Amino acid sequence: MSLVFNILIFFLISFVMIHSSNASDVQDFCVADLALPESPAGYSCKSVSKVTVNDFIKSQFLTTNTAFPTFNASISLAFSPQFPAVNGLEISGVYVVLNLGGFVPAHIHPGGNEFSVVTKGTILCGFVSSDNRAYFKTLQAGDAIVFPQGLMHFQINTGRTPATFISSFSSANPRIVIFASALFGNSLPSDIVKKISFLDDDAEVKKLKAMFGGTN
Amino acid sequence: MSLVFNILIFFLISFVMIHSSNASDVQDFCVADLALPESPAGYSCKSVSKVTVNDFIKSQFLTTNTAFPTFNASISLAFSPQFPAVNGLEISGVYVVLNLGGFVPAHIHPGGNEFSVVTKGTILCGFVSSDNRAYFKTLQAGDAIVFPQGLMHFQINTGRTPATFISSFSSANPRIVIFASALFGNSLPSDIVKKISFLDDDAEVKKLKAMFGGTN
Amino acid sequence: MSLVFNILIFFLISFVMIHSSNASDVQDFCVADLALPESPAGYSCKSVSKVTVNDFIKSQFLTTNTAFPTFNASISLAFSPQFPAVNGLEISGVYVVLNLGGFVPAHIHPGGNEFSVVTKGTILCGFVSSDNRAYFKTLQAGDAIVFPQGLMHFQINTGRTPATFISSFSSANPRIVIFASALFGNSLPSDIVKKISFLDDDAEVKKLKAMFGGTN
Amino acid sequence: MSLVFNILIFFLISFVMIHSSNASDVQDFCVADLALPESPAGYSCKSVSKVTVNDFIKSQFLTTNTAFPTFNASISLAFSPQFPAVNGLEISGVYVVLNLGGFVPAHIHPGGNEFSVVTKGTILCGFVSSDNRAYFKTLQAGDAIVFPQGLMHFQINTGRTPATFISSFSSANPRIVIFASALFGNSLPSDIVKKISFLDDDAEVKKLKAMFGGTN
Amino acid sequence: MSLVFNILIFFLISFVMIHSSNASDVQDFCVADLALPESPAGYSCKSVSKVTVNDFIKSQFLTTNTAFPTFNASISLAFSPQFPAVNGLEISGVYVVLNLGGFVPAHIHPGGNEFSVVTKGTILCGFVSSDNRAYFKTLQAGDAIVFPQGLMHFQINTGRTPATFISSFSSANPRIVIFASALFGNSLPSDIVKKISFLDDDAEVKKLKAMFGGTN
Amino acid sequence: MSLVFNILIFFLISFVMIHSSNASDVQDFCVADLALPESPAGYSCKSVSKVTVNDFIKSQFLTTNTAFPTFNASISLAFSPQFPAVNGLEISGVYVVLNLGGFVPAHIHPGGNEFSVVTKGTILCGFVSSDNRAYFKTLQAGDAIVFPQGLMHFQINTGRTPATFISSFSSANPRIVIFASALFGNSLPSDIVKKISFLDDDAEVKKLKAMFGGTN
Repeated sequence: MSLVFNILIFFLISFVMIHSSNASDVQDFCVADLALPESPAGYSCKSVSKVTVNDFIKSQFLTTNTAFPTFNASISLAFSPQFPAVNGLEISGVYVVLNLGGFVPAHIHPGGNEFSVVTKGTILCGFVSSDNRAYFKTLQAGDAIVFPQGLMHFQINTGRTPATFISSFSSANPRIVIFASALFGNSLPSDIVKKISFLDDDAEVKKLKAMFGGTN
Repeated sequence: MSLVFNILIFFLISFVMIHSSNASDVQDFCVADLALPESPAGYSCKSVSKVTVNDFIKSQFLTTNTAFPTFNASISLAFSPQFPAVNGLEISGVYVVLNLGGFVPAHIHPGGNEFSVVTKGTILCGFVSSDNRAYFKTLQAGDAIVFPQGLMHFQINTGRTPATFISSFSSANPRIVIFASALFGNSLPSDIVKKISFLDDDAEVKKLKAMFGGTN
Repeated sequence: MSLVFNILIFFLISFVMIHSSNASDVQDFCVADLALPESPAGYSCKSVSKVTVNDFIKSQFLTTNTAFPTFNASISLAFSPQFPAVNGLEISGVYVVLNLGGFVPAHIHPGGNEFSVVTKGTILCGFVSSDNRAYFKTLQAGDAIVFPQGLMHFQINTGRTPATFISSFSSANPRIVIFASALFGNSLPSDIVKKISFLDDDAEVKKLKAMFGGTN
Repeated sequence: MSLVFNILIFFLISFVMIHSSNASDVQDFCVADLALPESPAGYSCKSVSKVTVNDFIKSQFLTTNTAFPTFNASISLAFSPQFPAVNGLEISGVYVVLNLGGFVPAHIHPGGNEFSVVTKGTILCGFVSSDNRAYFKTLQAGDAIVFPQGLMHFQINTGRTPATFISSFSSANPRIVIFASALFGNSLPSDIVKKISFLDDDAEVKKLKAMFGGTN
Repeated sequence: MSLVFNILIFFLISFVMIHSSNASDVQDFCVADLALPESPAGYSCKSVSKVTVNDFIKSQFLTTNTAFPTFNASISLAFSPQFPAVNGLEISGVYVVLNLGGFVPAHIHPGGNEFSVVTKGTILCGFVSSDNRAYFKTLQAGDAIVFPQGLMHFQINTGRTPATFISSFSSANPRIVIFASALFGNSLPSDIVKKISFLDDDAEVKKLKAMFGGTN
Repeated sequence: MSLVFNILIFFLISFVMIHSSNASDVQDFCVADLALPESPAGYSCKSVSKVTVNDFIKSQFLTTNTAFPTFNASISLAFSPQFPAVNGLEISGVYVVLNLGGFVPAHIHPGGNEFSVVTKGTILCGFVSSDNRAYFKTLQAGDAIVFPQGLMHFQINTGRTPATFISSFSSANPRIVIFASALFGNSLPSDIVKKISFLDDDAEVKKLKAMFGGTN
């Protein structure tokens, strides 16, 4: 009888706690509901009653689904918009395949530091600090490297086979700012682009605008 | 006349500021509206116009309202779900009565550090660090102790009278993960439970599953 | 053809990223929608599709729009309620004109540290630490000073011309708590006000209540 | 044999982990070494090898050791300088005894929100928001209240017996800024004090300067 | 000449910036100097002048170096004590090999959320929320899962081959608290262990104490 | 006598509090001691006993001291290395003079959001979001704009007179990463630079390397 009573009490307590349950410091988790408004802390949370184990799983993360022919590369993203479970958890990931000669061009992540593990091939990795020192080295499969937030970095497949890496970030949505896209892949007038990039060759700027889908 | 003018101006300014008023860094406070969606930072805020002084008060906090017969204990919770005023304020509390022989079993708080004050009786308090060192000692009424976030800790009434303590946490909703509940109080199949807990006695696992309301 | 293809791919990728775009760590930005509910992290975000460059600009920030005759001063505020673009970005500003003899009385900012630049005139600036040390000095146009969060500070135009300063804060909405307003500009009964402020002169308290719009 | 081997391995692993052990997010704890330099995050950590269970305990926290005759009150502080174990843990506490007519005058905490539990007697508690709304009510023993960071608040024993309360804070060292001390308890010249406080009675200012130990 | 002048100026500026360069929000990075005192924010920083690209690389991260025979598993850790470059960057990693039948027992991470990618084999992954709901599923190579901070979780190789996974964490040093170690792998007296774990079989407790290197 | 006693008591209390005094959440302030080791939270604190009001003042902040002839601009920096008082306070500033045709080229701040006030002249300001939308507009003296952290932005004097602006940042040391410097102002070999920047003209790359002081 005492046992039955305990169980009853436990459900009662569990019930009390259900209402207190949901991202790390103040909730168990906050799976993003992409349809609700965002706050500065990220997406609103999906109701816990609708959350299942499948929300926490990114199936076939290691199968790329977006090709970047210009970079001879393809990726699989698991940032909060693609993997709502990481919302509020300050972690996310990306899987990248660099084909022969493939690379990730000069870029930064506005929102997070990157921990990157080479899982296949040979990759030249590098970054430049804000005092303009270059740190770069060729990594082999099995090696890992860290790229600090906001610093320009790049990865180049310098081997004779395709190369792959898995990166994770200290943000649910670190975002990617590719230097060339930020300069050439938008509606900024060419005169402005030339001035702020120190390029003075019209043909070069036009070519890059075309390559990155820029207008004006 | 100048005075009247000043007062008018002041109301005007106050009006301007009313719109800038609301949790610690960016608002005066953010009393939770439990009916609105949550964000990774906690509950949405109740409209300031509906907030009264009573929102900030937890009446009879020192009267327990939930009994845990298995632990011979009872508690009064003031986490954000029970006390919406602490939402966004990174603070919360709990009051615990340990009857004769009562205890709080091995548990952790996923979201916060704990500052605990013994207000009556004699309580054996302890925690274990992540490198497996045990820190434990018997506290008397009037003594206080700190339990760091995420470390296993426990409290046992080792005196001859009921004992009580008031704990506060560095989170609006630190939550409670009791080891035994996490292992035995859910739908995890017994085979899994036995493997991950290193218990190989079927009867023991069944008993604990029954005690904590587990299924499967 | 490859170029066309690349551009197509690029738009495709951009499209994928549009959904991942929006305050600093997890979003590009989160322009406040003042009509939606707030969270402990600030206002909800305006839909990115409705955001234009004008959202990020505070036109005529250096033209004051609110006069404080009691202080012989006027201000222009750019906290998140007045300048929604700073929501979630932990930065905001205010521009202050101190007329002859004008001043900002004893006050604190509950939410942020202040970096203040004197742009015209001569201003006596000071603050008092929590151990009651006073730090004060007269600044000239061109000088800057820092006031740490939560410490009482003040600014007095001690020159023979109007003086101006631009301050910025480490919060989107640091708010302003003027000591005299907090004591006298509200509905706290005079008996309480006198006790907590150590003022025992009825006339003085009445005068200040009148000056700051207090009742009771 | 396998057991012996496991134990050996375990010590080996434990050894590896010992070096990774020490405040909440990146360490188990960081007991303050008050003699080492501070960082913006708090005090440096005492070496783990010298930490014992006694570091985590504040004996006789509920016995006040500092009297404030002006307020007819006495306190026992457990902020990081008095209780080094809370360093880095964003939690701390204070115990306050309000004798007959005793009170805590108008003050703010620059660094933390306050969760306050009345443990004896009757206390009138109140705070004023940054838009000058007053929230105040009389609490009985057993009631709890929250005071948000940076807002002016006070506690007055309005009962016929001594009253006590235990407060905790969302900071290891929230500090206390008493309005009257910040204005009158330091070296600020009286002319400045009068201007920034709106007090024009010389005698009153002199009296308060004397009461709070101010000079000049 | 202008070019030479520019270069000179640039070095001058670079020099100015060298002194402003060093973890994400306030520094480019803060490679840990394990010999200096720690702060609540982590280890002190190695002097930038001594930092080379090799500091940012964890060679052979995907080669395990620590075996856990009890779990039939081995790991390679890249937390800040093993990989000082992640200090202050809120990111770290671990690589785990689960041999046939290998597993990671019930455990939590006090300091971080976990993003885990199965790189080989078949792994049953699960966690239990603070309201005692179990979320578990079998993942195949290529799948990823998220485990929220402070929640009990586990991984079991349920396939017919060794299995591997790479996990990253939202902390430079999330630490690992294995339930069984926290209960049995330390100096807590058996009577206490039995009470807080609800185990009443002396033999079982003794066996587990032996298995995890516990004393008393 | 009672007064004397109160004063004595007050000094006693002040003394107690002196030891608890020092950045925002856990200290009054943490003026950087640039000679001591850094932590991930910033510089170590100068001893409070050596801090004077002058530490909090940046004299002649509005007088530039570093010229950038390549940009036809000059600046005055008040980041923590130049203005130690902001250490730990998550705020800093810069004053910029753009001569005729002067500009700040494409750059990002790894560590902070920017609030920028045009104080003289006419400045074309713009930034590009991570989904490659360009936001740009010409500001007049008196206007303010916000640039979110990690997004490429620029400022160009498009008027017929020198132009000036004051910017503040949500970090004590946001740092500056100029795209052209990150690509061309370091030891990265030209082949790598060309690949990651999509520039294929040797002469152009050489010219930029020369302009920004790059080697190899």
